[in-house]
Amino acid sequence: MTRDTDGVQYHVDGELLPREEATVPVEDRGFRYGDAAFETMRAYGGEVFEWNRHAARLARTCETLGMPGAVPGDLPLRVAETLDTNDLADARVRISITRGVQPGTLTPQEEVDPTVVVTVEALPRGGLDGEDVWDGPAVVQSVRTRRVPDASLPADAKTHNYLNGVLARLELRRAANDSYRPDEALLRDVEGRVAEGATSNLFFVADGTLRTPEAGDLFPGVTREVVLELAEDEPFPVETGAYDLDDVRDADEAFLTSSTWEVRPIESIDGIAVGGGPITELLRRLYDERVEERCY
Amino acid sequence: MTRDTDGVQYHVDGELLPREEATVPVEDRGFRYGDAAFETMRAYGGEVFEWNRHAARLARTCETLGMPGAVPGDLPLRVAETLDTNDLADARVRISITRGVQPGTLTPQEEVDPTVVVTVEALPRGGLDGEDVWDGPAVVQSVRTRRVPDASLPADAKTHNYLNGVLARLELRRAANDSYRPDEALLRDVEGRVAEGATSNLFFVADGTLRTPEAGDLFPGVTREVVLELAEDEPFPVETGAYDLDDVRDADEAFLTSSTWEVRPIESIDGIAVGGGPITELLRRLYDERVEERCY
Repeated sequence: MTRDTDGVQYHVDGELLPREEATVPVEDRGFRYGDAAFETMRAYGGEVFEWNRHAARLARTCETLGMPGAVPGDLPLRVAETLDTNDLADARVRISITRGVQPGTLTPQEEVDPTVVVTVEALPRGGLDGEDVWDGPAVVQSVRTRRVPDASLPADAKTHNYLNGVLARLELRRAANDSYRPDEALLRDVEGRVAEGATSNLFFVADGTLRTPEAGDLFPGVTREVVLELAEDEPFPVETGAYDLDDVRDADEAFLTSSTWEVRPIESIDGIAVGGGPITELLRRLYDERVEERCY
Repeated sequence: MTRDTDGVQYHVDGELLPREEATVPVEDRGFRYGDAAFETMRAYGGEVFEWNRHAARLARTCETLGMPGAVPGDLPLRVAETLDTNDLADARVRISITRGVQPGTLTPQEEVDPTVVVTVEALPRGGLDGEDVWDGPAVVQSVRTRRVPDASLPADAKTHNYLNGVLARLELRRAANDSYRPDEALLRDVEGRVAEGATSNLFFVADGTLRTPEAGDLFPGVTREVVLELAEDEPFPVETGAYDLDDVRDADEAFLTSSTWEVRPIESIDGIAVGGGPITELLRRLYDERVEERCY
């Protein structure tokens, strides 16, 4: 493993540390069991976009994990310090809050001394006026791996248990060949309904209506929420519902949303051309304006 | 977080390190995503019990995770060194193999430089002649959290994505009161069939037949396999099948199996007295003899 001494610093447990020293004990439950909440967000011009939504969700995830008081009060300061010390204005920010080290094995103890980690990475501003972080529209492939049901892990909790998405992405490796390189996996739920991408939510347009799978067995991302909000005032209907693969393959337009990708058009699903279109472009523009308004 | 400088040493990436220095980078995928295989096993008299089965399963889990070559060839040596340096003969041994640090975000890279961690902890020999690691028979409570289906995460992979069990155990905290302290959670699959405990497999006796839920949406533990093998030559029928909660609550005997607990009788399920019995006691004795044979 090569790790550059490149001056990058991360925030670990209240301290800024050189990346090479940013570690957690092997006994930390975040490592042993993935027993940790996290959020990935974007900073634009030094401001975290939609901080309040991310912070609220982080708190909800900690509550779901039975550690309601784990989010430190000075978290915004820690994030600001990490961005500052790395001289970053446009960046991806990742926050992890683990249950820390505890005596015993699996059963969590009530008293929690959480491990709090903030990492940052330069990421240029996206949107219409910026530089897209993606190389081109998404090539989406549906996979066999089914989205973990809400009954097994609450769907709106964002945790270090991310193997479901890792396995979905691994399937893309097997599906790829010289002329076909899918870069996002589309997961269905155990009943076969379309759920989400491994790190993104799915939207599509059919019959002039913007559609997205309804919350339930999917992770309702912040970018998905923002896009639904932006679409509210526009002159086309918006619908959340239960859809199957054929619905999305037959769509007139389709796109993915995530904090990292923002609004990213889909070139094809399972090899079937879909592409962006006027509604996708309008939403990209509106999203970009929202970023401009809030962060600059 | 208090961590004693108690002389304990762990094996991290090929090196023995004092426990306080046994860490992994915050960028390690085992931490970020729970992207890691693990095994928990017992050493008795300095010998790892059923090493071959554990090693085979560790290799299978790594293969499932798309990192087939990740198990180091000298793993038995690393385990032996860790036991030796800590002067332990009877111990719990935990091995973790992570996908390590990789460039990019979720999509795994083909080239893997795994992080390999071996931790050990004193654990007295159990069984009939030893000291039970459990304080008494198990008090088992069925929970709402459903076992993650095989279609979402392959059931026989043992990984750092262990929140499903953590959430199940958290439910026990809510169920407990002054006179009722359940200590193992019983998970059903999404269809409502009894699957397993958070860290154990379930066996029960009804109509003179030893029964255990069939492999599928459950983790087929090494101790479960050994017990099924031991039961083969005994004068009672053995059945694997699909069972509901009423089947196990009405059982004549019931017990849990795990490497740590070995064969542990169940006192009650959902408050309903069950208890051990002759078949449970016979299997405890046979298990103990197997340990004696193989490790001493």
